[in-house]
Amino acid sequence: MESEGKIVFTEEQEALVVKSWSVMKKNSAELGLKLFIKIFEIAPTTKKMFSFLRDSPIPAEQNPKLKPHAMSVFVMCCESAVQLRKTGKVTVRETTLKRLGASHSKYGVVDEHFEVAKYALLETIKEAVPEMWSPEMKVAWGQAYDHLVAAIKAEMNLSN
Amino acid sequence: MESEGKIVFTEEQEALVVKSWSVMKKNSAELGLKLFIKIFEIAPTTKKMFSFLRDSPIPAEQNPKLKPHAMSVFVMCCESAVQLRKTGKVTVRETTLKRLGASHSKYGVVDEHFEVAKYALLETIKEAVPEMWSPEMKVAWGQAYDHLVAAIKAEMNLSN
Repeated sequence: MESEGKIVFTEEQEALVVKSWSVMKKNSAELGLKLFIKIFEIAPTTKKMFSFLRDSPIPAEQNPKLKPHAMSVFVMCCESAVQLRKTGKVTVRETTLKRLGASHSKYGVVDEHFEVAKYALLETIKEAVPEMWSPEMKVAWGQAYDHLVAAIKAEMNLSN
Repeated sequence: MESEGKIVFTEEQEALVVKSWSVMKKNSAELGLKLFIKIFEIAPTTKKMFSFLRDSPIPAEQNPKLKPHAMSVFVMCCESAVQLRKTGKVTVRETTLKRLGASHSKYGVVDEHFEVAKYALLETIKEAVPEMWSPEMKVAWGQAYDHLVAAIKAEMNLSN
């Protein structure tokens, strides 16, 4: 939700993402890998979008380059969510939205890819914090993810 | 798996799909709807591919045209699977592979769409027959589905 261009993310939603991120943070490497394995289970074709997977004989989940990449994506999604209310905008640390826009454009990422990744992210978080999981937490993480994707798509449009 | 163009589907695999289909058959309408709700949960964008959903104000799961369509797709997938070994090929009843190829081409269906539908189908069957579900049943239904999609894609290529 946005109001006059500023992202509206309620205190309750912030508390839900902060609480669950504090538990998941220490397992980011493992959870990032689970996220990508779920994405590739749902849509195996998406492996072709990753140069280090494309012609590799090694199964994706054992590919040494996947784990660090998966962890950075997972951490980016979570950190962007926990800062959403404080900053009122999407912030990414290790890279820039501009670079994300360019790379997603380059690899032909479309709505369905972002949606499959969202479904996989919510499933990964649900399995990581089952005792905390609730419909409200699903909405909070889902909305935070949607804001991140909207910011990336804005840059994709600029770079096209 | 294929051998000299004839589909290889083992007796065990046939038994698994026949056994589970005999239980699911009577709930085809409900299970078909669950299949499509799962597809739309994973990739909401795919709703746009259905003319009766595209500009409809009614939520997809309440759209009166979705249930019959979803049932026919679910029945087609299951019937094609249970006949696979006997006929050694993909057979579809209510329509023709040619028509399926043309419609899937027309609506711009790509690999990811077929894969999301496969994931949703396997999840739907897993939830429908939890007591029978096993890794072997997942492979049997998955391979049968892959043969159906390969037959549709062959027609898509002809119609392009």
